[in-house]
Amino acid sequence: MMSGFSFEVLAQDAGTAARRGEFRTPHGNVSTPAFMPVGTQGSVKGVTPAQLAATRAQMILGNTYHLALRPGAEVVRNLGGLHGFMDWDGPILTDSGGFQIFSLRDRMSLTEEAATFRSHIDGSLVTISPEEAVRLQEALGSDVAMVLDHVVQLPNTQEKIREAMERSIRWARRCQHAATRDDQALFAIVQGGLDRDLRQFCAAELVALDFPGYAIGGLSVGEPPEAMYEVLDYTVPELPEAAPRYLMGVGRPLDLLEGIRRGVDLFDCVMPTRNGRNGMAFTTRGPVRVRNAKHREETRPLDETCPCEACRHSLGYLRHLFQAEEMLGPTLLSIHNLTYYQRLLAETRAAIEAGQLTAFIEQIVAGWEAGNDDRQQDSLQE
Amino acid sequence: MMSGFSFEVLAQDAGTAARRGEFRTPHGNVSTPAFMPVGTQGSVKGVTPAQLAATRAQMILGNTYHLALRPGAEVVRNLGGLHGFMDWDGPILTDSGGFQIFSLRDRMSLTEEAATFRSHIDGSLVTISPEEAVRLQEALGSDVAMVLDHVVQLPNTQEKIREAMERSIRWARRCQHAATRDDQALFAIVQGGLDRDLRQFCAAELVALDFPGYAIGGLSVGEPPEAMYEVLDYTVPELPEAAPRYLMGVGRPLDLLEGIRRGVDLFDCVMPTRNGRNGMAFTTRGPVRVRNAKHREETRPLDETCPCEACRHSLGYLRHLFQAEEMLGPTLLSIHNLTYYQRLLAETRAAIEAGQLTAFIEQIVAGWEAGNDDRQQDSLQE
Repeated sequence: MMSGFSFEVLAQDAGTAARRGEFRTPHGNVSTPAFMPVGTQGSVKGVTPAQLAATRAQMILGNTYHLALRPGAEVVRNLGGLHGFMDWDGPILTDSGGFQIFSLRDRMSLTEEAATFRSHIDGSLVTISPEEAVRLQEALGSDVAMVLDHVVQLPNTQEKIREAMERSIRWARRCQHAATRDDQALFAIVQGGLDRDLRQFCAAELVALDFPGYAIGGLSVGEPPEAMYEVLDYTVPELPEAAPRYLMGVGRPLDLLEGIRRGVDLFDCVMPTRNGRNGMAFTTRGPVRVRNAKHREETRPLDETCPCEACRHSLGYLRHLFQAEEMLGPTLLSIHNLTYYQRLLAETRAAIEAGQLTAFIEQIVAGWEAGNDDRQQDSLQE
Repeated sequence: MMSGFSFEVLAQDAGTAARRGEFRTPHGNVSTPAFMPVGTQGSVKGVTPAQLAATRAQMILGNTYHLALRPGAEVVRNLGGLHGFMDWDGPILTDSGGFQIFSLRDRMSLTEEAATFRSHIDGSLVTISPEEAVRLQEALGSDVAMVLDHVVQLPNTQEKIREAMERSIRWARRCQHAATRDDQALFAIVQGGLDRDLRQFCAAELVALDFPGYAIGGLSVGEPPEAMYEVLDYTVPELPEAAPRYLMGVGRPLDLLEGIRRGVDLFDCVMPTRNGRNGMAFTTRGPVRVRNAKHREETRPLDETCPCEACRHSLGYLRHLFQAEEMLGPTLLSIHNLTYYQRLLAETRAAIEAGQLTAFIEQIVAGWEAGNDDRQQDSLQE
């Protein structure tokens, strides 16, 4: 049914499971591994579409739950679909609302049929079933839609995790049956907590349903990074070589590299924009706290190798913008961090093509660790 | 002493005192009449230098008082002067702090020597004398500096207005003696409230001191627009034909047109950015309240004739950004309003060259008045 999509592995790294691929969609191609900036409410916070394109973002993410509540999926459809609404011509992926079922767990009731919760905007009751999640995403018109999944908090009992995983498989099948748009690819989501058997069972069941792409969900919900890497170690090999793999909601630059090393192709995270708004910049020498008083008269930019708009300015100026609470500070730092992520991914793709990913990761990590005074503080706070 | 500056009247309107001029500065030329966006704290709120340039702004304004308190004039100097600090290569004018003497009148003590007030940032005592105002502006490195003037609230007693006006003349002379940079032009400021004799006396005294430019200050402090126009009627003719005339802190689009009609060349105001942040857009059909529910599914842009980034989007999308409290809403509307002002001024310059300013103003005002539902509400609220 689905047309205009394909995924091709162009190169494989020498010493790791990393691969360099090309994901083709009706709104253009994505060189993978790729990072998708998050435009929760129809805007990647603080940046215009032109500024977003200048960061070299290829594909972005929108949140079905937020857009369905405001302005409403039908309003978005009438205003040109999500592409026209946001003025973003490139590929867009929408999540399904599954993560919000997790976030709203205290205000949500869940049955086999659907999840029901109160809108955080006007308190009205909202029901999202698998069929409704597909209907909403078809109205939004994203290139990639996600199945509705049941995400649970970790740690949790094996029983609860199994129950949610099994429901996620049944819901994935319902989403697949509900989908009608042939210009939208529907990706499945592997659940199963930190349990090897549950993850592998879930992967096998979903693969048998033959989806055009597979996500690994339910991670980055508070577990240690090492636990997440371990899940990838035993889950990714269960997924087909020929389909794109997407690690949802992840993460820090190191998490991206560790995911790529294990064969992940797509990532999304609010971290570059959220940290940027809070005055934290990602750089080749590790994180920089822009508000730090020591930067007051710093004439050099944040990162001398960075081509972004923020790095046309001195770090002293960027600090001033945050001290003076000027909107331009969050905007420039969001642009910088998004640019940092895209540059990191472009270099990573080149390293995979050269079969040198392990050495590349070592070099990047050494750069972060070398001589950045802000690092220790950040490892505590992030 | 001053080099790199000149002002030339290129054309005169047929039926009004309006003139079309060229003001040359060390950082480039300004076609007048011109509108200067305000970058109070080293940033025109919400927009990057590239976005600001795209609005066709020629010259911008910085606030000496704000920059002197934070980050400090010496810090700005060390970070490249105001041009390097902001990454703005075009001409910059700085005010002197006189208007803040007015704004802070309840927390300020004033002697013949200087004004002293408490910093709104850290409560420290700050003294601004005429000499200090010049020193600060020389450290900032603006192209045009303003003399320190004594602005009083209106209405006020004739005695207080005269006293402040006479002090403004003495302070202007002290500023002139203190100025040392030959790449910075110092403009005088005519005071005198709404009193014809005081205004004309002040103008004559300042003209005798031979400044390269003259501002009309102490207006837009709460008096009716008609009172301001009357001051221009009898003050502008006292100023030399061969020097630029600057109406400080003004104003609404109509105020600009009425000022230009009376021979004013330069304007500055926070209105395009402040109103933009608050969801009010200037358009050829009058003001538009973007948050208005009637715009919810509006597929047309704010202004179909506008080339700005905001007008690539539907009005429905802009409304959504404001409803969702996305930063992009204020940014896009600031860009739109700044673009509106620059387009209005460019058209006004063309109308003066054609000797048709009166007809042009009538046509613009008719456009505002024709069929805009938001207009009545705005005339009450602005």
